[in-house]
Amino acid sequence: MRVKHKPWAKDYIHEQDTIFINSYIEDVDKLQELLNQYDEIHMEIGCGKGRFICEHAKNNPNILYLAVERQASVIVSAAKKIDDLKISNLKLYNGDIFNLKDFNLFQNKLDKIYLNFSDPWPKVRHEKRRLTSSKFLILYKELLKINKEIELKTDNSSLFEYSLISFNNQKIWDFEEVYLDLHSEDKANIKTEYEEKFSNKGFSIKYLKVKLNNK
Amino acid sequence: MRVKHKPWAKDYIHEQDTIFINSYIEDVDKLQELLNQYDEIHMEIGCGKGRFICEHAKNNPNILYLAVERQASVIVSAAKKIDDLKISNLKLYNGDIFNLKDFNLFQNKLDKIYLNFSDPWPKVRHEKRRLTSSKFLILYKELLKINKEIELKTDNSSLFEYSLISFNNQKIWDFEEVYLDLHSEDKANIKTEYEEKFSNKGFSIKYLKVKLNNK
Repeated sequence: MRVKHKPWAKDYIHEQDTIFINSYIEDVDKLQELLNQYDEIHMEIGCGKGRFICEHAKNNPNILYLAVERQASVIVSAAKKIDDLKISNLKLYNGDIFNLKDFNLFQNKLDKIYLNFSDPWPKVRHEKRRLTSSKFLILYKELLKINKEIELKTDNSSLFEYSLISFNNQKIWDFEEVYLDLHSEDKANIKTEYEEKFSNKGFSIKYLKVKLNNK
Repeated sequence: MRVKHKPWAKDYIHEQDTIFINSYIEDVDKLQELLNQYDEIHMEIGCGKGRFICEHAKNNPNILYLAVERQASVIVSAAKKIDDLKISNLKLYNGDIFNLKDFNLFQNKLDKIYLNFSDPWPKVRHEKRRLTSSKFLILYKELLKINKEIELKTDNSSLFEYSLISFNNQKIWDFEEVYLDLHSEDKANIKTEYEEKFSNKGFSIKYLKVKLNNK
């Protein structure tokens, strides 16, 4: 995604400390209190401008949603949606998921992870940056509860092929659903901004749902 | 595939006992002698009219190829190709792969299995007939040597999706290669009759290569 640089974004994130959990890294009690209020915790990694996760949060007030995005100039759009729509059960984290992992409170706590239209990083030397490389899958295993799921959507065939191989070869993920053309299926689906745009251009959307098995 | 019934096919198969191994089921020594002559054994299950496997056999004289097909009226076309091209390292079996399994000589003996454009059996009640249902995968495990491979091609998205799930969930198969559009890859590929026809009509060919792991 080409991003317009917003020089004010970092300050904005710092000020909006009811929407962003960045400051909670120094206040574990505050984070624990937040988590205790909800039945489930769902996380989107790479939330972009946040349409997908805002829609989920509006529909499911008993679930706490956490949306992670490295690009400050992008995630501020998600923050503005949360503010406009007065959504209280969706919190944002601007940064790297590996830093968030240091909140030990998330270990074996997540009920769902969403990976939507992640950067395909097509060059082999960038493989480790792909959100379905083994390093990331091991992290997801640490964050998820047993028998809980990851849902992945992409328009990129190479990333999808890579992800199928990566998940399969760890032997800890059961495949629950695979679709090469999600939009041709009779299945509820909240579209991301990117998904809307690229499916309108004729790209088919690939979908994978895996479950962390208990072996 | 719509098949023209050939009432003479069964008699023809019975007569061509140098090409068909059907009679070997009562002559284990003859079968053992055949197998001993080659470095590797590769099998295609559902060979249709045999173009794919004839091409492989011509290119690899040190490998013994076995091609299995249930429909007598179809496999006779493969036999005629073998006869015309004087191919000695390709033998046919007209019948059900589960009967062939009774030749104990094949247990842990195969170096490769090919599944090309298998019948997708789309109805849920026919799931067990799909050549990638769990019953078949267990059979393939018994036939293959450790670390040896299955290659699957299909134009049918539902069968491909099903097969990815089925292989993954057994946890004994490593995924080596997955392609959603095989013909767009820079990869050697011998086309089946069916593949030629359907890719010309614009259908993308899906490909999966798995390896029996040694765990």
